[in-house]
Amino acid sequence: MMRNQIKILKGNIAFTPVFGQLEILANSFIVIEGRTVKGAFTGELPAKYHGITVTDYGEALIIPGFVDLHAHAPQFVNRGLGLDDELLPWLEKYTFPEEAKFSDPAYAEQVYQQFVTELWKWGTTRSVLFGTIHKEATTRLMELLAAAGLGGYVGKVNMDRNAPASLRETTEQSLADTEEFIQQTQGRYELVKPIITPRFAPSCTPGLMTGLAALARKYNTPVQSHLAENTDEVALVKALHPECRNYAGVYDSFGLFGQQPTIMAHCVYNDASEIGLMAQNNVYVAHCPYSNNNLASGIAPVRNLINRQVPVGLASDIAGGHEIFIARVAAMAVQVSKLKWLETAKREPFFTIPEAFYLATKGGGSFFGKVGSFEPGYEFDALIIDDSPPGRPGIRQYSVEERLNRFIYLGDDASIAARYVAGKKIEQPKFSADNG
Amino acid sequence: MMRNQIKILKGNIAFTPVFGQLEILANSFIVIEGRTVKGAFTGELPAKYHGITVTDYGEALIIPGFVDLHAHAPQFVNRGLGLDDELLPWLEKYTFPEEAKFSDPAYAEQVYQQFVTELWKWGTTRSVLFGTIHKEATTRLMELLAAAGLGGYVGKVNMDRNAPASLRETTEQSLADTEEFIQQTQGRYELVKPIITPRFAPSCTPGLMTGLAALARKYNTPVQSHLAENTDEVALVKALHPECRNYAGVYDSFGLFGQQPTIMAHCVYNDASEIGLMAQNNVYVAHCPYSNNNLASGIAPVRNLINRQVPVGLASDIAGGHEIFIARVAAMAVQVSKLKWLETAKREPFFTIPEAFYLATKGGGSFFGKVGSFEPGYEFDALIIDDSPPGRPGIRQYSVEERLNRFIYLGDDASIAARYVAGKKIEQPKFSADNG
Repeated sequence: MMRNQIKILKGNIAFTPVFGQLEILANSFIVIEGRTVKGAFTGELPAKYHGITVTDYGEALIIPGFVDLHAHAPQFVNRGLGLDDELLPWLEKYTFPEEAKFSDPAYAEQVYQQFVTELWKWGTTRSVLFGTIHKEATTRLMELLAAAGLGGYVGKVNMDRNAPASLRETTEQSLADTEEFIQQTQGRYELVKPIITPRFAPSCTPGLMTGLAALARKYNTPVQSHLAENTDEVALVKALHPECRNYAGVYDSFGLFGQQPTIMAHCVYNDASEIGLMAQNNVYVAHCPYSNNNLASGIAPVRNLINRQVPVGLASDIAGGHEIFIARVAAMAVQVSKLKWLETAKREPFFTIPEAFYLATKGGGSFFGKVGSFEPGYEFDALIIDDSPPGRPGIRQYSVEERLNRFIYLGDDASIAARYVAGKKIEQPKFSADNG
Repeated sequence: MMRNQIKILKGNIAFTPVFGQLEILANSFIVIEGRTVKGAFTGELPAKYHGITVTDYGEALIIPGFVDLHAHAPQFVNRGLGLDDELLPWLEKYTFPEEAKFSDPAYAEQVYQQFVTELWKWGTTRSVLFGTIHKEATTRLMELLAAAGLGGYVGKVNMDRNAPASLRETTEQSLADTEEFIQQTQGRYELVKPIITPRFAPSCTPGLMTGLAALARKYNTPVQSHLAENTDEVALVKALHPECRNYAGVYDSFGLFGQQPTIMAHCVYNDASEIGLMAQNNVYVAHCPYSNNNLASGIAPVRNLINRQVPVGLASDIAGGHEIFIARVAAMAVQVSKLKWLETAKREPFFTIPEAFYLATKGGGSFFGKVGSFEPGYEFDALIIDDSPPGRPGIRQYSVEERLNRFIYLGDDASIAARYVAGKKIEQPKFSADNG
């Protein structure tokens, strides 16, 4: 044990080691060595830790950092716009024109500085991001995340069909840029890594998908894309790929469906055989309830996915979703699950808050390895929640679990007193000084 | 014209004189005489107003104040709690024990000071509130609202059956207390008035409902209650009142369904004949989407209600709903309307943002008379929205309509630079100094 690498924090510790099981250690210690949790202790600290300074957060909550499994960083400035449209016209009118601007590194710099600052501000310690087709801007996004001390996977987007001219690549250029992007970024940052990012099947030719799968294998990188967000999109994919049994089968036939670790955003309209394949191939679902509401996509059958052993995490889907704060995304996951419960004639139980909290932390965190929990061996990503100003005004006492519930439903960044990623306390990014 | 009673404000004026029609007057003037709007002017002010000082809000938006048609003030401290339950168990476990505390005026004082401060903070200029059965605490709530300069209807709640002993009144006491409450408060405040408040049919005997209707007639007061929030509740009412055709018919048979101006909260499960009666009797629906999600009630068929000429406004339903900010309630109304659109096989169009904005302002405001718009003759309730810090960071320019959309989806109290009610600028309530 390297005593000088040990941190000990004290507070009200809350996390979900198991889906739906909230573990609360009131007024307890958590011991971190280097990047990882050694243990959490109520009452006395083990003798071997005596003499090490304890950072006492008093009555504050200590919870795992939030994980956002799917967001489009370049769409940050589009939040709250164009929400009178469905997916496909919204892409044409709002998303693509904005993304085209990222050929300009100076423009990208402004947006990405602000976006990364917002991730920090709202306690999203790990995220899985789409950039744009532009390798320079996307590389810079990775640099900014790393500079902020945040963890993430970031993808240069690929599109060689069904995209406006300003964003349509040739297959060759798309593959060459992607390989160069991987070579420039892989292994360069401790916590930020590249991810292969075909936008979605309609915007990638078979040649491109085949080539991307080969790159994923060659460089051992994970894969992210979109799947079955909207019925029009599902119909489009069926028309483009009559040879495939279903939408998941398109990705699978090209080697982009769990052959490497894979995240698929949305998954609102998958049939039983697709869900079976997702479970079999350990394909993660990024559940994006704000986005699925905003774009009138529907309610993803998340309870069913989980029951079928599909791994699930939560996601903002900026800017289809306008809400970057994963706590509120968790609350929305609970809310729409209640509507799903009604929709399924009460067959699929709605989520409890501890279930949604798990999805917001360990559920998505597991894509990163041992992330999103405080069990021994987990990387210590944490938020210190000091809700004392509005949360405990002396009128009513709240239990630790009630305070956690209120933070999820009513909290905001003002309650996040400190943030840790992989054992390190991270401060507000310096580059954002004049971003207010 | 009394020149010394005239105020002139300048800014980017946005309001919805007609459902779904957003009117924007960029860099324009609004002229207020006493309580009411005289006119809004783009370009030159009419000569008769020359020489009157203009309060120039620069690039800020000037929008109508928000109206909350249904909230339970005493449940304020319960926000975010107990949301793993449905309506009836939630009432037993969380709501009733909290409301019982309001027999203690000192306790009520603390909660109501904080609640009224929050209404002010979040720009809810008019609200229709449930108190508790306690006339003293409820009268104090009215005093606090009036002291804050906010408008509202406030009801002493009536319950003489199916309530815990601590909250169950005798019919006689309930009626006597209600009459005393009305006598003490009616005509006492300019903008705050009493409203007859049978909690809902299951908790009021026929004798109580008959007596309350008589009081409403005698004192010419409006009426509020709950209607068809949840299928279990609808079944309970059917069992209690086999003599009535339906739930609305229960209230109607006792003279509590539009015989005086009436608001019914929720209205998720009404049949066509009930909806016809609501339209005929001009019974307002308080649409509470956050609450209907949280308590797994369902999605109210609001488009259908509006098409059938039923008047509708928005409501937080604190604490079934955890969100007090009516802008976010409007965004949620849009979101769930998109799920309703899918649920109705795309027969009922989802709400546009201007439609939801209307519901949040003029829709509910019309219950108060000429409130919620900037047409001439309307009482001037307004919010000044200064979104310059995070809203216009120089990265992307937003139109006035885009800024309004972003305020509705992403805004918070920090953007509300000033509040006006009935022509008067209102400052943060003084009683809240140590409420932090």
